[in-house]
Amino acid sequence: MIAVDWGTSSARAYRLAPDGRLLERRESAGGILRVPEGGFPAALAGMVGDWLAAGETRVLLSGMVGSRQGWQEAPYLACPAGVDDLARAVVPVPFDGATVRLVPGLSTEDAGGTPEVMRGEEVQIFGALDFGALAGDGRDALLCLPGSHAKWVRVAGGRIAGFSTHMTGEAFAALKDHTILGRMMTGTAEPGPAFEAGIARSAEAGGLLHHLFGTRTLGLFGRLAPEDAASYLSGLLIGHEVASAMTGPAPVYLVGSGPLMALYGRAIALKGGEAIAGDPDIAARGLGLIGERTEWA
Amino acid sequence: MIAVDWGTSSARAYRLAPDGRLLERRESAGGILRVPEGGFPAALAGMVGDWLAAGETRVLLSGMVGSRQGWQEAPYLACPAGVDDLARAVVPVPFDGATVRLVPGLSTEDAGGTPEVMRGEEVQIFGALDFGALAGDGRDALLCLPGSHAKWVRVAGGRIAGFSTHMTGEAFAALKDHTILGRMMTGTAEPGPAFEAGIARSAEAGGLLHHLFGTRTLGLFGRLAPEDAASYLSGLLIGHEVASAMTGPAPVYLVGSGPLMALYGRAIALKGGEAIAGDPDIAARGLGLIGERTEWA
Repeated sequence: MIAVDWGTSSARAYRLAPDGRLLERRESAGGILRVPEGGFPAALAGMVGDWLAAGETRVLLSGMVGSRQGWQEAPYLACPAGVDDLARAVVPVPFDGATVRLVPGLSTEDAGGTPEVMRGEEVQIFGALDFGALAGDGRDALLCLPGSHAKWVRVAGGRIAGFSTHMTGEAFAALKDHTILGRMMTGTAEPGPAFEAGIARSAEAGGLLHHLFGTRTLGLFGRLAPEDAASYLSGLLIGHEVASAMTGPAPVYLVGSGPLMALYGRAIALKGGEAIAGDPDIAARGLGLIGERTEWA
Repeated sequence: MIAVDWGTSSARAYRLAPDGRLLERRESAGGILRVPEGGFPAALAGMVGDWLAAGETRVLLSGMVGSRQGWQEAPYLACPAGVDDLARAVVPVPFDGATVRLVPGLSTEDAGGTPEVMRGEEVQIFGALDFGALAGDGRDALLCLPGSHAKWVRVAGGRIAGFSTHMTGEAFAALKDHTILGRMMTGTAEPGPAFEAGIARSAEAGGLLHHLFGTRTLGLFGRLAPEDAASYLSGLLIGHEVASAMTGPAPVYLVGSGPLMALYGRAIALKGGEAIAGDPDIAARGLGLIGERTEWA
């Protein structure tokens, strides 16, 4: 089977053995925003044409490729949802030379009735749960997927019960690049003392919009060096996010890769939680699990 | 006396009678960022040269003109501070043809020890208090000055006891213009039902960074129209600010002008407070009060 985690800015393709083992992987910068109208069949053939020629007949896609801006829209499946639910809800996509299916994203509502959505993270989550790194059998867990739109996910009884999205990463970039705060920043966010000072500050009274201004005043008074200011701002924002999203000092399963993992791990530890980091290729494993359960004929 | 409220992007000059009465006012786009190095004497002469020629000999300046980027730096005066304290702390500025003094800005620290600063707002605050629109004698009050960096100010015994700054306006602009949220916005922020929905949302669990994402999902699900999205986002942000800054359902004296006044007034009312709007020319009155107490010789 071929599995493709196809997002907005990049795509990761995996060739899986019948038992789910990862045989080969490749990455492409051809995210859905780079694909011209009607160009998805050609883009898929360009990415995995040799695997198809070598005899693969099944292709399972996840991520923004199933959004309105993608190949074909796969309606969101409502939570709670498990791998079996996702396998039953895959959407067929016409393609010459293979059977192609789209995994739908998930939707939920929070207590106040505001909707929530994800596309692509659901396969990572089930891949992560299958690693068994969590205490117990991984059927009840709290997961965090750092990113420009970070997701916090509650798993109950092996299914995704609900989740919430936090615009922390995108807010950080907008504040750093497009407000007065960025003028006094020279470095990137690192998980050192300035980041921890931001985390500590996030626990004080005053609210995030007030705490943001402190990034500037600490700089004005020479108490925050320009090379530490991005770390402090990151600590403020991630600290506010973790305080809102962590329901207690439980273990949090961190899913993802890159520099955000260390920052979130530190923030979770400082809030009394235990951060457990996952594997970068979990999307392949999650797609494999769904593929095993999919009705391909 | 001549009073000039000289900020980053504009300047307002006032000619005051000896009893403090406003004789004449004029506004200029010549904020300090437009003044070339060493160009402040010429800029002042250009703004009020005819008043000086007509016999005025005293000029009192406030605002960012007293910052490191301005004419001359006037060190911050620490809170608590009243008009008499400010009058004693004015800084002389060399100028041919008149006696020029700079009113210093104020500094304070919040409970966590993070510094806070203002420059220019202090004269508006004392001008506002002098209007007597507040219950009692205006010696104890909570004031809010909306703006890209909104200030909340506690006045006790007629002096500014402390204040906090919220980057709400600048965060709104950065989020609207430089994140995915802005892609689905067509209008400006107005104090109608969408704004009130944002205020109500701000009181729910989840935190601001999570609430931000709801602006997008409500749009995706057709529950927030593009022309209402800016109002909703504004309600979210101002709602979070007001909830953090309002210490109880007391009257809040709103100081300023422009469209933000109606938004803050509505947000304060929805949180159970009473918003009282001030006069736009209060800076002139505040500078007049300080000028009366200044040692000019």
